[in-house]
Amino acid sequence: MRKVNIAILGLGTVGGSTFDILTKNRELILKRTGIDFAVSRVLEKREEAIERHKVPRDIVTTDIDALLAADDVDIVVECIGGREPVTTWMLTALANGKSVVTPNKAVVADKFEVFKEAAEKGGGQFRFEAAVGGGIPVLSPIMNDLAGNRFSNIMGIVNGTTNYILTQMTENGMAYEDALKDAQAKGFAEADPTADVEGIDAANKLCILMKLAFDEYVHPTNIPRTGITGVTKADLDAAAEKGCVIKLIAKATLDEEGALDCSVSPTELPKSHPLAGVSNEFNAIFLTGNAVDDVMFYGKGAGPATGSAIVGDIIAIMKALQK
Amino acid sequence: MRKVNIAILGLGTVGGSTFDILTKNRELILKRTGIDFAVSRVLEKREEAIERHKVPRDIVTTDIDALLAADDVDIVVECIGGREPVTTWMLTALANGKSVVTPNKAVVADKFEVFKEAAEKGGGQFRFEAAVGGGIPVLSPIMNDLAGNRFSNIMGIVNGTTNYILTQMTENGMAYEDALKDAQAKGFAEADPTADVEGIDAANKLCILMKLAFDEYVHPTNIPRTGITGVTKADLDAAAEKGCVIKLIAKATLDEEGALDCSVSPTELPKSHPLAGVSNEFNAIFLTGNAVDDVMFYGKGAGPATGSAIVGDIIAIMKALQK
Repeated sequence: MRKVNIAILGLGTVGGSTFDILTKNRELILKRTGIDFAVSRVLEKREEAIERHKVPRDIVTTDIDALLAADDVDIVVECIGGREPVTTWMLTALANGKSVVTPNKAVVADKFEVFKEAAEKGGGQFRFEAAVGGGIPVLSPIMNDLAGNRFSNIMGIVNGTTNYILTQMTENGMAYEDALKDAQAKGFAEADPTADVEGIDAANKLCILMKLAFDEYVHPTNIPRTGITGVTKADLDAAAEKGCVIKLIAKATLDEEGALDCSVSPTELPKSHPLAGVSNEFNAIFLTGNAVDDVMFYGKGAGPATGSAIVGDIIAIMKALQK
Repeated sequence: MRKVNIAILGLGTVGGSTFDILTKNRELILKRTGIDFAVSRVLEKREEAIERHKVPRDIVTTDIDALLAADDVDIVVECIGGREPVTTWMLTALANGKSVVTPNKAVVADKFEVFKEAAEKGGGQFRFEAAVGGGIPVLSPIMNDLAGNRFSNIMGIVNGTTNYILTQMTENGMAYEDALKDAQAKGFAEADPTADVEGIDAANKLCILMKLAFDEYVHPTNIPRTGITGVTKADLDAAAEKGCVIKLIAKATLDEEGALDCSVSPTELPKSHPLAGVSNEFNAIFLTGNAVDDVMFYGKGAGPATGSAIVGDIIAIMKALQK
């Protein structure tokens, strides 16, 4: 068995959580896999992050070029976010024969085929379970456990910020602006919430879900999209009178003739629907397949839990490297 | 790429569904995997089952010994149920170097290590995703996507019969005996419902979940168990007054000192708990891990949907056979 070396780019919430999981659960992962591993490099310059996660000084670096070419890096975990320079860095890592793991839904959705081809050419893997549903296993189950299904329906609450805001508006009667401020104070919404509240983040995730479940690629900018900024208390009350709740639903259907329909929009769901009870920062993805019928995956779609999905991808690559 | 040959033992609900999925989704599975496959043998003597699923006569057999030794069988799918002769048959198949897939929770729970060792010795795989939660992906996610987690808590609604009965008692005010008769009439309960209503089936599933999530093996007969036959309308009303519902919960906790606690019993859950909304024949498994926090898997725990999990296992083996 060869030892597997991991490089983590960025010690924010997700990168820091990934580092922490690999540290605190090291013995457990060793026992389960039988494969030795180490975090060999961490790309980070913020002293307080390095301190907080107790990263040994000798693995901290700011030299990305050396990291992407290093012999002691098998897996590059991108946790910086944004589009560039990380797209270029991930493609360089793949070209250098390394495997790449990322939770970066925006770049995965934007350049799905580019990354796939780069991984095939380089011989490494490109994995992104964390890009949809944070810590919730959903992409791997679609591609593996549910691979015998023809899928016809995807419905997801895939953005925790908007689900938190809508839950607060529904359950506590808050106005949109107040709920947004509350979400920002609790760390569930960013200072500039546009990507969340306008449904851009949800469209990125729907793009990835459609590609994997339907084998249909629709660029996120081509997904019809309505955010939650126009949802009023009156809308929520009217829904409640009908026994419904309003959720921001990323939705896609593929009929038997191959006609595809997709959208992100505030949607009324009857309270009996499994997605109706998914509250606050939780996410859930509901799928219908012609073998399994309805199935749903539920959990935390953001924050430290996302590190769980990244470590799952790392373990899958560790196993593949032993073959 | 070598062609993979599959033998199905028994064309009941699950075996028949497996055959149907492999037939109707054949092109899709071929496209996704790039691997050719065929059902090369079906062990069944009931004419009406063979007719219903349109099984070609030349692959129907009643000769189990020849099937288990045949060169044109790579994967044996056991869908007959019961303990014997299927335990002996599966062990023979594994000894002959074949892979085995089964939804048979009773034998998997009873002889977990025996099957595991037989598979290791024979060089094939032993897979049983369908044994817990029917079509719901849960065992593979625990072993793979969530492999970076130390699990501390398992709570499952893993028996559709009892969940259907309790739902009917709760929502429609039915007495236990009437709800049982209704479940039997709808095909959700067997003529002898003992294994379901006494929690035996749920204990088998909990045994498997504990082994995979905690690496702790507790034989099902050693799991403290209370069924639902003693649950009265008064109990349900008292729970409702507290804002709770009663569900048959298969539960296990593993604390940081390694102390294990497990049981199957009717349990009051607050209506806000994600498991509280899991109604009728649906199943759900709720887990807590130290990386992912709370996560839940929801879907159909029995019936034809179970074939989805079996086909997922078949596809995993097909891929492994190409390595």
